[in-house]
Amino acid sequence: MDNQQLMAGLLEQVKGEAAKIDRCMRQDQALFGPDIDELLSAVLEYGLFNGGKRIRPFLTVLAGRLCTVENERIYQLGIAFEYLHAATLFHDDIIDGSATRRGKLSVHKKFGVVSAILAGDFLHAHAMDIVGQMAGKDGLASFCRATKGMAEGEFMQLRNAQKHNLSELDYYNAIMGKTGLLIAAACEVGAMFGGGNGDQVKALKSYGENLGCAFQVTDDLLDYLGNPEKTGKAVGNDLAEGKMTLPLILAIDRAGTDDRNRLLTIISSEEIRRDGLLETVELIDRYDGFVTARQQAEDASRRAVDNLRIFTSPRMEKEKMVLESLASYVVMREK
Amino acid sequence: MDNQQLMAGLLEQVKGEAAKIDRCMRQDQALFGPDIDELLSAVLEYGLFNGGKRIRPFLTVLAGRLCTVENERIYQLGIAFEYLHAATLFHDDIIDGSATRRGKLSVHKKFGVVSAILAGDFLHAHAMDIVGQMAGKDGLASFCRATKGMAEGEFMQLRNAQKHNLSELDYYNAIMGKTGLLIAAACEVGAMFGGGNGDQVKALKSYGENLGCAFQVTDDLLDYLGNPEKTGKAVGNDLAEGKMTLPLILAIDRAGTDDRNRLLTIISSEEIRRDGLLETVELIDRYDGFVTARQQAEDASRRAVDNLRIFTSPRMEKEKMVLESLASYVVMREK
Repeated sequence: MDNQQLMAGLLEQVKGEAAKIDRCMRQDQALFGPDIDELLSAVLEYGLFNGGKRIRPFLTVLAGRLCTVENERIYQLGIAFEYLHAATLFHDDIIDGSATRRGKLSVHKKFGVVSAILAGDFLHAHAMDIVGQMAGKDGLASFCRATKGMAEGEFMQLRNAQKHNLSELDYYNAIMGKTGLLIAAACEVGAMFGGGNGDQVKALKSYGENLGCAFQVTDDLLDYLGNPEKTGKAVGNDLAEGKMTLPLILAIDRAGTDDRNRLLTIISSEEIRRDGLLETVELIDRYDGFVTARQQAEDASRRAVDNLRIFTSPRMEKEKMVLESLASYVVMREK
Repeated sequence: MDNQQLMAGLLEQVKGEAAKIDRCMRQDQALFGPDIDELLSAVLEYGLFNGGKRIRPFLTVLAGRLCTVENERIYQLGIAFEYLHAATLFHDDIIDGSATRRGKLSVHKKFGVVSAILAGDFLHAHAMDIVGQMAGKDGLASFCRATKGMAEGEFMQLRNAQKHNLSELDYYNAIMGKTGLLIAAACEVGAMFGGGNGDQVKALKSYGENLGCAFQVTDDLLDYLGNPEKTGKAVGNDLAEGKMTLPLILAIDRAGTDDRNRLLTIISSEEIRRDGLLETVELIDRYDGFVTARQQAEDASRRAVDNLRIFTSPRMEKEKMVLESLASYVVMREK
């Protein structure tokens, strides 16, 4: 099977699982019953059922299965990660002033800031409740650690927003808070629920951290180099917003005085940034910013896969292969 | 001992316990260590340590002790309720557009909306973590039920904001979400942690619900009738904001057509409301709106105390008395 077939098969499977997870979420929502406030219900319907890929619950399911035999209840645990993810997006879109998400108005634009804050708080509590009931104290501790880390990561970003001398370490800390922690927790808690031993839980958590990094670095590469026809969005958004991502950080780090100063001049001025995309891409390229970032994404993807080595049971070969394919997919994807 | 002495003694005790709870919160904050983001740390310091009475943790401690022997760890559980309370205030002040709290700038005015949202999310997760670790699945379920109910209550208020035909039931549902649920959960979870049996847990939960109602109805009375020199705030805020509270709802319910229409005219127009306080007070008074609301507050206070009857052990006489005094205090207070 070549790579393209492998990926096609993977995406097919993700789609099937997403449908199953959506059904599980609908059943769970129905449990709130007819008594739930109608406005809250409308916000949840709008904010939750938007064609998302449901990668986080899927990871929980895969991690659980990799550790143990089949247990259908793990889908119910998985949806907590989708809820927390959604709660985070409701609040993040306010914080970033994002007017749209997936081609629709963001929740705060559609229902107002107040509804977006409150629905986020509601989902947040609901997600904690599910994890606490299903995954016990250790699972809840992991979940809360991720949640707190995400809020801390946002604070860091807030403080770093005006800083243009970010280091690679700053960048990796930021993307860990933004993406890595929750994905790692989805894998870790799934493994715990599945009855994994200490090494297995640790391996799957590390898989998640590396998968998250590989995903986010690739996302930041696509923002500069992606094909708008495939990604569905214009290139250069990060630069336009003055966001320091890995390719740029690497280039500034490596450039000689003149080119470094030029890059810092571009990134510091909204006006110059607007027309400076081509020049910036060229400068980044001159110092191998893209090539190196790509290598780092691939390294992270490889580290993710390396963590799966300890799972040797032939019975779980399928789950292991899906996790491996996901790690390949996140760095190969063109959108 | 007359009432005034009793109350003076109670307030003295509340003060001593608040100091102890503050120390416990400081110890807990220290656990976050030097690695916590400095901006987040500043927001928490500002938003948490503001001379609050720490009534919720105190209730957790009292409820726990009423069910069992002394256990100092219950203070650590109690602070989760202060954290959730604070998280709620951070978000509520954004929602209500409140610029000040306790005579200082509110968190979102001091640190910005983004910080207020994120610090609230952080505290929210931290509170859940504490409850999950210390009070088990049932405690967490109660805590999450309260949190979700509070968000739902805010949604209801949002929908009711423009409605002037609210019923008494609407009002009580709203104040339960705003005040009752969290106070009830503080008592309920304390009782669970204290090893209370089913009846004891239920009784203390009901105590908290009724205490919360008595408190909030009294608050709404003070908004019309309080002495600004004692309460520290002007009268008539609720009317100025067009908020339908119990005295007004009762009066509209009981008035003849002319007076009812006049009250609805006043409440519906921002301009008329501004100069309509005296007339409104007179109309509410004409239909015993204040007297009846006061009676309902006292009834709730009495029901709170009635719930304590099942606690007959002489060893817990002191805790029981404090809870009884608190129920008297909330309806007697002048500020």
